[in-house]
Formats: sequence, C-alpha cells, structure tokens
Amino acid sequence: MAGSSFGELFRVSTFGESHGAALGAVVDGCPPGLALCEADIQQALDRRRPGNNRYTTARREPDQVEILSGVFEGKTTGTPIGLLIRNTDQRSQDYSQIKDAFRPGHADYTYQHKYGFRDYRGGGRSSARETAMRVAAGAIAAKLLAQQGIEIRAGLTQMGDIKAQQLDWTTVNDNDFFCPDATVVSDFEQLIRRLRKEGDSIGAKIHLQATGLPPGWGEPVFDRLDADLAKALMSINAAKAVAIGDGFAVVAQRGSEHRDEMTPEGFCSNHAGGVLGGISTGQTLTADVAFKPTSSISVSGKTIDRFGQPQAIITKGRHDPCVGIRAVPIVEAMTALVLVDHWLRHRAQNADVSVDTPVI
Amino acid sequence: MAGSSFGELFRVSTFGESHGAALGAVVDGCPPGLALCEADIQQALDRRRPGNNRYTTARREPDQVEILSGVFEGKTTGTPIGLLIRNTDQRSQDYSQIKDAFRPGHADYTYQHKYGFRDYRGGGRSSARETAMRVAAGAIAAKLLAQQGIEIRAGLTQMGDIKAQQLDWTTVNDNDFFCPDATVVSDFEQLIRRLRKEGDSIGAKIHLQATGLPPGWGEPVFDRLDADLAKALMSINAAKAVAIGDGFAVVAQRGSEHRDEMTPEGFCSNHAGGVLGGISTGQTLTADVAFKPTSSISVSGKTIDRFGQPQAIITKGRHDPCVGIRAVPIVEAMTALVLVDHWLRHRAQNADVSVDTPVI
Amino acid sequence: MAGSSFGELFRVSTFGESHGAALGAVVDGCPPGLALCEADIQQALDRRRPGNNRYTTARREPDQVEILSGVFEGKTTGTPIGLLIRNTDQRSQDYSQIKDAFRPGHADYTYQHKYGFRDYRGGGRSSARETAMRVAAGAIAAKLLAQQGIEIRAGLTQMGDIKAQQLDWTTVNDNDFFCPDATVVSDFEQLIRRLRKEGDSIGAKIHLQATGLPPGWGEPVFDRLDADLAKALMSINAAKAVAIGDGFAVVAQRGSEHRDEMTPEGFCSNHAGGVLGGISTGQTLTADVAFKPTSSISVSGKTIDRFGQPQAIITKGRHDPCVGIRAVPIVEAMTALVLVDHWLRHRAQNADVSVDTPVI
Amino acid sequence: MAGSSFGELFRVSTFGESHGAALGAVVDGCPPGLALCEADIQQALDRRRPGNNRYTTARREPDQVEILSGVFEGKTTGTPIGLLIRNTDQRSQDYSQIKDAFRPGHADYTYQHKYGFRDYRGGGRSSARETAMRVAAGAIAAKLLAQQGIEIRAGLTQMGDIKAQQLDWTTVNDNDFFCPDATVVSDFEQLIRRLRKEGDSIGAKIHLQATGLPPGWGEPVFDRLDADLAKALMSINAAKAVAIGDGFAVVAQRGSEHRDEMTPEGFCSNHAGGVLGGISTGQTLTADVAFKPTSSISVSGKTIDRFGQPQAIITKGRHDPCVGIRAVPIVEAMTALVLVDHWLRHRAQNADVSVDTPVI
Repeated sequence: MAGSSFGELFRVSTFGESHGAALGAVVDGCPPGLALCEADIQQALDRRRPGNNRYTTARREPDQVEILSGVFEGKTTGTPIGLLIRNTDQRSQDYSQIKDAFRPGHADYTYQHKYGFRDYRGGGRSSARETAMRVAAGAIAAKLLAQQGIEIRAGLTQMGDIKAQQLDWTTVNDNDFFCPDATVVSDFEQLIRRLRKEGDSIGAKIHLQATGLPPGWGEPVFDRLDADLAKALMSINAAKAVAIGDGFAVVAQRGSEHRDEMTPEGFCSNHAGGVLGGISTGQTLTADVAFKPTSSISVSGKTIDRFGQPQAIITKGRHDPCVGIRAVPIVEAMTALVLVDHWLRHRAQNADVSVDTPVI
Repeated sequence: MAGSSFGELFRVSTFGESHGAALGAVVDGCPPGLALCEADIQQALDRRRPGNNRYTTARREPDQVEILSGVFEGKTTGTPIGLLIRNTDQRSQDYSQIKDAFRPGHADYTYQHKYGFRDYRGGGRSSARETAMRVAAGAIAAKLLAQQGIEIRAGLTQMGDIKAQQLDWTTVNDNDFFCPDATVVSDFEQLIRRLRKEGDSIGAKIHLQATGLPPGWGEPVFDRLDADLAKALMSINAAKAVAIGDGFAVVAQRGSEHRDEMTPEGFCSNHAGGVLGGISTGQTLTADVAFKPTSSISVSGKTIDRFGQPQAIITKGRHDPCVGIRAVPIVEAMTALVLVDHWLRHRAQNADVSVDTPVI
Repeated sequence: MAGSSFGELFRVSTFGESHGAALGAVVDGCPPGLALCEADIQQALDRRRPGNNRYTTARREPDQVEILSGVFEGKTTGTPIGLLIRNTDQRSQDYSQIKDAFRPGHADYTYQHKYGFRDYRGGGRSSARETAMRVAAGAIAAKLLAQQGIEIRAGLTQMGDIKAQQLDWTTVNDNDFFCPDATVVSDFEQLIRRLRKEGDSIGAKIHLQATGLPPGWGEPVFDRLDADLAKALMSINAAKAVAIGDGFAVVAQRGSEHRDEMTPEGFCSNHAGGVLGGISTGQTLTADVAFKPTSSISVSGKTIDRFGQPQAIITKGRHDPCVGIRAVPIVEAMTALVLVDHWLRHRAQNADVSVDTPVI
Repeated sequence: MAGSSFGELFRVSTFGESHGAALGAVVDGCPPGLALCEADIQQALDRRRPGNNRYTTARREPDQVEILSGVFEGKTTGTPIGLLIRNTDQRSQDYSQIKDAFRPGHADYTYQHKYGFRDYRGGGRSSARETAMRVAAGAIAAKLLAQQGIEIRAGLTQMGDIKAQQLDWTTVNDNDFFCPDATVVSDFEQLIRRLRKEGDSIGAKIHLQATGLPPGWGEPVFDRLDADLAKALMSINAAKAVAIGDGFAVVAQRGSEHRDEMTPEGFCSNHAGGVLGGISTGQTLTADVAFKPTSSISVSGKTIDRFGQPQAIITKGRHDPCVGIRAVPIVEAMTALVLVDHWLRHRAQNADVSVDTPVI
C-alpha cells in the first residue's frame, strides 16, 4: 500500500535507492517448476543497463543479479524468489548543489513535501535505477509467458519529430535505439549528438505489442487488462501518456470505422488494440507510451532551495539525453508483469471454462 | 481480485448488470463524521443519468439511490456505506439477435471466452450502466475532498474534429455536452444530429483538472498518483488513452522546455500536469482521456455468432451517438476516488511530516 | 482495508447495521457456471436466524435474501453477486438508556473511541446481525466446495461445564443446540432455562470438521490455511480462542506422541488437525472455537456513560442466553470462505502440479 | 497472495530458505523520520537466534542483518527498507534420508503435494529459519510502537506439565527460557535435559501482553485486532492454538462474571484481554499461544517416501527440544507487526476523531 509492490497473484515488491547499498526484489507467486537461472534474468538486465549503449548514460554498473531464494536444482519452487543487485558505481560525488535545491522536473520537491526529508543522492528512490528490478522480475514473467506462446516486444518509434515509418521487429535489436525502423536510425543518432552538444534532452514514444494472447484474459470493471496496463506503463519513470490500440485517434473516428468487424476467418481490423471490455480478444495487444525528455540537462534552470531561496541549477554528469531509449526493456517488463498476473487470475477463476465458440 | 473493487483505503466494490435487478456498491473506509444524505449522491447521478440530456440515450432510468448503511443521524459512521439503485427500465426486449451473435466493438466475444457463458441482456456487467455506482461513490469522495479545498472538474473538449478552443469552467454545466467552450456547442449539436441521421457515432476527448491539491500526495514507484489515475480513467467503458499534463506532446519537447522551473513565487509552468515522480506538486492536476465512438450503431456490421457462423448486426434502440458526453461525470468520479484514496494513504504514513520548506 | 472484506480471490464485502435499512454483501470472484438460486442461500440463513429456535433470541426476522446480480438463467456468471436482506423488525425501541452509556462487554466503548460517535441502535455495525451476510456468502462457498467433495460441519460441544461426549453428526441438526451428542441435550435445555430465570448467560465451545480436502491447499509462511482459519473464526462476534487439531493440549505432549506417523495405508493419527506447515494434509481439518457468554443480560452491571458518569445498566429485551448456539452456522460459513479462497489460490499457482507421490 | 507478505499499511514481504543463500525482507510503509540502524534490529535477532541459548539448537548462525535501503543519515526515508541476512552455516549435510522420505510432523508431505517438488534441505521455506525476518521486521515495528508508549512482552509460561505461577516481567530475560517465573526455571532445565537424553521433545505455552495501547485501534467485522493477532500468531511455525484474554475459559463463564464492568476509575477486570468488538479498549492486550513439540526428534518414527514405500526416520542433528522457547521473540515480533499496522490504519481513517468521553 506504500507503493512499491505490483501485481495481485504474481506480486513483485522492490526496494533500493540510486546510491544505496543495493537494489532488490521479492517475486511472490511464481508457479513451481519453471526452469530459471541467473543468466535468464541477466540477459534482460543487460539490455537495459547504463553503459551498454553509446546513446545512453555513461554510468557504469555491471548490474549483476543474484537469485537468493525460490529456485532449487534449477527450477522455481513456488516460494518467493529473492533478487539482489549490489550498487557498485557509487562515486563519492559532490551533492552540495542538490542537497538543498530542488532540480526542476525531478521528484526532489515532491519527495521533500511527502516525507519531510529525502535521500538526495542521485534522486534516491525516485531514480530510474529502481527500474532494474522491474526488468529482473519481468524476465521471470516473460519466461512464463513464452511457455504459453506469448511474446512481448517494444520499440522506439519516435524521438522528437523523427518518426519510425515501419515496424520491422527483426531489426529492433540491431541498433542502439531499439528502433524497429532501420531507416531512421541515423537521424536519431544525429539528433542525440546535437542534443549532447547543446546539453539538452528530448522526449520519445515507444510502441508495444504482445502476440499469442488467448481471448478471455482480464477482469471486468476496474481491473481491466488495458487499465492495469495503463497503470503499469504510466508508473515507469518519465511516462506521461498511454494509449491502447488507436489511442487518441479514436476521438475523430466514427463507430462504423472503429468497431472491429468479425468474420469466420477472424477480426477484420484491430483498432481496439486487442482488448474489448477490458478482456483480451486474442488479437495482438498494442499500446503506445510517451516519455518526457530527461530533466537532468546542462542548460541552466531556475529553481528554489528548501529554504525558499532562488537558485540556478545545472545537472552535470552521466545522463541520457533521451530516457525513452532505455525505457524500451522496462515497457516490455511491465507488460510481462501485467500479463502474467492476469494469466494466474484467469486460472484461478475460469479454470473450468470451456467455450462452445470456435476459436477464430 | 476479480476486478470489481477499486481503492486501497477508500475501497469501492460494485455489483450489478445492465438489465438485472439492481446496481449496488459498498464503500468501505469513509472516515466518520462526514455529513451525507441521499441528495448529495443523487445530484451527481442526475448529471450522468440517461434520459437527462437531449444528446444522449433516451433510456429512462430514475437512478434513485438509496443509502442502506454507514450513515447515522446524517453523518457517516466510519462503517461501510451500502448504496443501491433498482433497475426500473427493464423493457422486455427481444434479445434473439444478440443472444448468440457477438456485437462488434462490444465485450460480447471476450465475455463469452472468459466465462464460457454470458448475460446477453444489454451487455450485462460490461454495460456502461455499471458506471452509475462509480458516480455514486465518487460523490462521497468528492464531498470529502471539497472539505480539503480540492475541486475536480472535467469537460468535453473534442468531438470528432471539433475542438474546444478555451476552458471556461463557468459555462461547462450550461450545455448538454459538458463543454467548457460555449462557442463550439452548436457545432457539437449539428454533428450529433448528422450522426443520428446516419445511424453512426463519434469519439470524444475529455479534459480533467483538479485544483487545491497539496504537494506530497501519491506513492513512489508503482502506486504513483498519475499511474493510479491512468488506471482509474482507462477503466471507464470506451476509454482508449490517458495523458497527464502535456501527454503525447512531450515526445517532441526538449528538456529545457518541458521541465517546469521554479521561483520563490512558484512554478513557472505546468507541463508536468501537477505530478512529479508520481507525487503531487501542488499545481493543478491535468489530464486528458480519449473515448472511442460507441459500437452500438444502426449501420450494419459483420460479425459471427458463437457457433462461428457469419452474421450481419444492427444495434437498434436507445444509444448515445457519443459516449464521451456522459463520461464526463464518470471521469470526475474516478478522479475523486483516486485522490481520496491517496489522501488517506498520506494520512496513514506521513501524518507527522512537517516540511521546512515554505509552501510556494 | 477498513475491515469489512474477507478473502483474496473469493472476496466478500459486507455492509449493514443491526437496525439500519438492510444488510448486504458483494461476493466477487465466484467462478462462472455454478447453479445458484435464492433457496440455496435461504436454507443456510434459516439455520442461523433468530426466532427459528426456542433457545435463542425471540427477535423475529424473516431474513429473506435477494440475489441482485451475478446470476443469469440459474447460473453464476463470474461477475459479482450482490446479496440483500432488508431489516424488517426495527421496533421503535427506547434507546435512551444506551444512547450515552457503554454496555459492559459490548463494543459501545471501543466504537465511541474509534469513530468519535456511534450508531447506538442495537449495537449498530458491531451487532451479530452482521453475521447473516457471512452465512449467505458462506452458502455459496459451501456449494462450490461440495462439488469438490468437501463437506464442512460444526457442532456445539460444550456449554458451561456440560460437555458432549461424542461426535455423532447424524443427530447434530435434530436438536436446537446443533449438538452432536443427543445425550447432553436435556442438560443444555435445563441450563438455558436456569439462565433465563436468573437473567444470566453462558459461554460455549464449537467443534469444527472439514472432510474431503485434498492435500496441498494453503500458502506457506503467513497465509497458512490454519492461520487464515484462525483469523476467520476469531473474527466472529464473541469468539475468544481458536485451536487447530489438538490445540492447547499440545503444550503437554511429547514430539513422539504428537507427530502423526505415516504408513502406506495413510496417517496413523491426526493430532495436527489436517494441516502441516500451513498446508492441508488431506486428513480431516479439525478446530475448536470458544465463545464468550453474551453480555446482554438482565443482571445489573456497573458502567459509565460518555461523560464519564457512573451508571447501572440492565439489558432488556430479546437476547440469546448463549450466543454460541447460533454461532454454529457462522463457524461453518467462515470455514467455507477460507477453504474456497485457498482452492482458488491453489488453482492459480499450482494448476499444473502433478505429484509423483501415490495419494495415501 | 502467495502467502509471504503480512500487513496492509506496514507491509512485510519475506523470502529465503533454511539452506539457501540468504534470508531477506522488504518492509514497505514505515513512516519517515524513525531513527534506525542495524544494531536496533540485531538486538532483536540476537534474542531469537540459534546457538545463543543453552537450551535451544546448537546451529551456529551469526544472523548478521544488513539494511540495504530505506534509511538515510540514520533515519527512515519512508521508502521500502530492504533487509538481508546471509546464511553462513550451510553444512554440506547428507540429505539422502530425507530427500525422498516425508518427516512425520513436518511440512515435507504437504509441500510435495502443493508444489509437486520441494527444496528438501532443512525444510526449505517451511523451516523456522524464515522467522528471523519476522523478528527483524518486528524490531522496526516495535521501535515505532515504543514511541507511542506501547510495550510488548512475551514469556514461556508452560512447558509440558510445568506451569509458571507468576508473571514477573523483570526476570523474563534473566533465564534461557524467557520464563517470567524464576521459580520454575530449574524444573524447565531438568525437563529439557531429560528430553535430550530420550531424544524427544515437548510442547509449550507462551503468554503475551501489550501495554500502552490507546482505545480505538482495530477494524470492525473481519479485520478485528484480535482476529489479525490470531492469524499472526497462528502463522508462526508449530503454533496450534491462540487465546485472547480468558480464552477457552470463557466457555464455562457466566455473562455476569465475564463482562468487564466499568467505573469512572476504569475497567474493574480484564477478562476480554483488552479487545471489545475487535477494537482495543485501552487495557492491557493479553493472549496465549500453544506450540507443539518439535517433530525433529531422534526417536524413530514411521513414514513413507514419495514412492509410497514405508520408511523409518530419525532426525539427527541440531534441533530444539522445545521450539516454544525460541518462539518468544517471534510472538513479540508478530504482535508488533499487527499493532503497527492497525496504528497506521487508525491514522488513515480516524485522524480527525475527537472523542467527548473522558479517557478512563
């Protein structure tokens, strides 16, 4: 209830600050018998980690994950899986500038008001470093889903005004931007170089797809599959908007255009993005997420300190010009957490369901 | 966990189908001592209810709410508040067409797959009729928030291609569209008339604001104020996208433009929409929601029945050409539920917090 | 979180006060396809209801339950089941004596301190009348369990110093005490008559059994089957102690005596009461619950009023001399709620488990 | 929902197996500003830990706790507190005997059935070693409660047939049994010596008190203070019964005897054990818990293996003849977790309550 847990039946509870001793998580509710080792998780962490990519922050963290419990003889036991990553790159930095001043666009001001006091080292708990544990837990979820034939993939489809024109998933891991359109990669590179020179940053959009979902997952009313996904994605640092299927474009659509008609061969279109009434249709689940430009830039900005005095602030050091890039594996991880939770819920309540309808 | 409850500390659990005996809710966690009577709730319900508006469905439901418990001598007791609305307008309709066929764009197909069987009368639990109880519970939440100086307001800002050009909240209740721009109302009217003639429907966008929030509400990491709001709004029938603050526009913004700078006089802008790191800044909370066009239209559509046979379907009868209109009070209600829940969470954990910072 | 909900996957949320308009419940998470009608629930309510038994209170409540949602064409739909009982016997009583004074042994004093103000009519929410809804929801749970071959039964095994000497379940419904030993019934009758004359009351013990449980239900660590059962039973009005299996007798037992040895033919004994490590063994689940004597007696008692002034109080009117009698169906209902919840949890996480062990 | 979390607002999630790499916990919901260091927690762990006591197991574990997050500059930040204890004493034992055979009285058989497979090393997750994390989290809770003037203490009041005759809390930490009656300590010592020689074990009873509670904590209906306490205590390894106040003795009491009368000077007695209607009265909270004799004994016992074959089993090695002794700090810890959770709930919903009643 204090915000650091996610999921009902596949429940992830995380802890750890940017510059504290370690990051960790407890994953409770993983079914027994899943083959799992540290390499399964490490692979996902390596996609996300800083220092692995020319176009993201230069902070060097090996992000070496350790499984502390819940796995025996190479298989999950059904009991909680404890995960740990030690923080190693805790440079004894000079925090005198940000100790009392609130960095604009950051959570410094709000944490100060919420808690009356804050861990100012690198943003403490509000740092995106926390998302490493989402990726670690998400890797377990993704492995469970893969066994059900479900695949999740995300890609950077817009940065600033530059938009991907196609979704070619075969190339998404071949470039440093997780971009599914190889033709815009050089434009992205130029933009990042320009921003670095100017000390500025840029927003981004990520497109998400999940294939292989059966129809019938999701709960009605509040815990809809799309509502839970919206929460999951909006909970990622810097996320500002979430769209399912056609998203905001539906505002200008007619009902005769939007509703996805059906024939015995299947749905004729997928404006809905794979969800109707909060429950999966069996079509591809599609969503988009907007990420704001990082607020840690070297352009001087006006702010105040906690005594109400005006300050000018420049964020020095290791920061991504576009946080959206590294958000790609996090979007995938959060989606995996939502889907695996609804899979387990489905098993609980609808285990005996047999539908007379031919699957289309 | 089966999806019909919302909130952690101010918890609303609803029940009821479109054409069942009644709709109801339990509101558990309302603090004691709030002056509350049925008229407080009825007022909110009357804003939402069908038949109250020339531009929405003609279904006539008095939606008369009854408080069954939790209020004694005009004040809440702190124990659960039971709410009930009897369904009165259950015309003995002919369901033979939709009994077996799945209406395109509706939850018929997904409910059939989830549960193996469904209440086909008017969509059963998937009907927007369920939202009456959200509005009823939201009215209690809004009254609690008003005592804290918090006001929530929403308005229809776009329908099809027609956009409101201003936010004039003084006029929002003077037209049948809850539109905060009186100058576009006649365009809205014309559009609805045209759609009625064509038997078609249209999408819409709603803008939301909450004023008076203190800084410091919201939880870090998963249960962020904006993440919980995204879930709440996306859980409304027909919602397809949620944006906080500048929303998708952040994709093309620079960090130097987006971050809201501060001076001793306060924030210089509000691109963030009143939330940083998932916690309220004390600025106005702003959001937008997209609603798809209703799928119940009289333009014939292709579908299948539960035996996999092709069917053509026309939805006859009482339906809104634009579900977004009636969604306005629901957006307000869900926002109230999110805010009151975070208010109580804040009291639980941060009751003793005193901040040395001058409030700006 | 405000205390009026029970269960994780089969979740019951109740509302209603002793002398309010109605009692109600929402049951969310019932699997679809269960044949259910009002008579199924009414049968259980009739066992519990006041006025149905010569040895319990004379308050006359028909306790007529209405199913408001979640059932269609005689089967559960998987969506929330709304239940309602109107209060009919709200005699316009004289509350002047208890309006300000705290009845000793009742929750008057504690509710006043918790909420600052209370519904004093018949104890309000603290009245045992609330348990009608537990019995109603429990009837649904029991029907689901019966389909799994699980049967729950409870009986009054001690009242004052009079103890049942045998557990003959065939006779438990043949007497007004739900006593599984017909030979002590006349002693119980005499005791109740004597207490009525003296205006006093007496405590009681209930024994509980559940048969047909498979091995493997229950969660490790906190949400053990026996821990959840302890909470469920202790949450019943007037309950003061809960024992599993041999209960407090284990204090004087040796390990060589207590541990239940096993042979290929099965367990050699059942000191554990059917639970090891919080998980069912497949043996009969056994438990005992102690109920305090009712505090509503006509023997004058010392108390204070809310102004701190001394008062003498006599409870007049319709009250059970032994609340334990009517607690029997409530004990059964709470047990059913615990078991059905763990059944669903088991399905969620261990659906694929196949055990190499021969079932013994 | 998979059982390894406890509490709603002060939420503890634990992980770790007896012979795995480590034990850990996440404590989410601790208010900010509490002075906290590892020594605060270590002190509590040292009371519980094996090898610290002549009369408990000889397993040597330093149980050195590390705080990984949530504390900055010596104070809690309000964000999750990560706790870790590395397992050091993982002797490469011979598990061939228990790998396939189910130790009678242990959870081997039930875990096998629940999960289809189990970590057989020292009981895995079902080992009492898991309780170290309860004690660690409980130490944080106890520190918060101490600031509210609440003190929790428990003592061993019965072992086999030997009963403590008095509650002298000044001596409870002066003997290895946490016994509040110094006069029976030598009898306890003799009994343990005799059991060691015989290779057998014995049950025990623990008495619990919490003083300083204000009236008004606890929720009505299901989440009663005593119901939550019953669950908390019954969830401790080997617990078989929980009694509040007079416990099972109420069965033979009259109402005129049991109800605690009140005068302007306060309550005249405390048969209720400090709880009425599930809410604290302000009197001392009292409870008793029964612990079964440990099942790990060197008296040979009959069992089967997972192929259904009969086996004889003797548990060798390091085991407590009376698990009840080491359960004392665990009983205190679980009580602290329950009370701190209800304190936070109280703050959430009843923060504004002012009672007109003079506190008595």
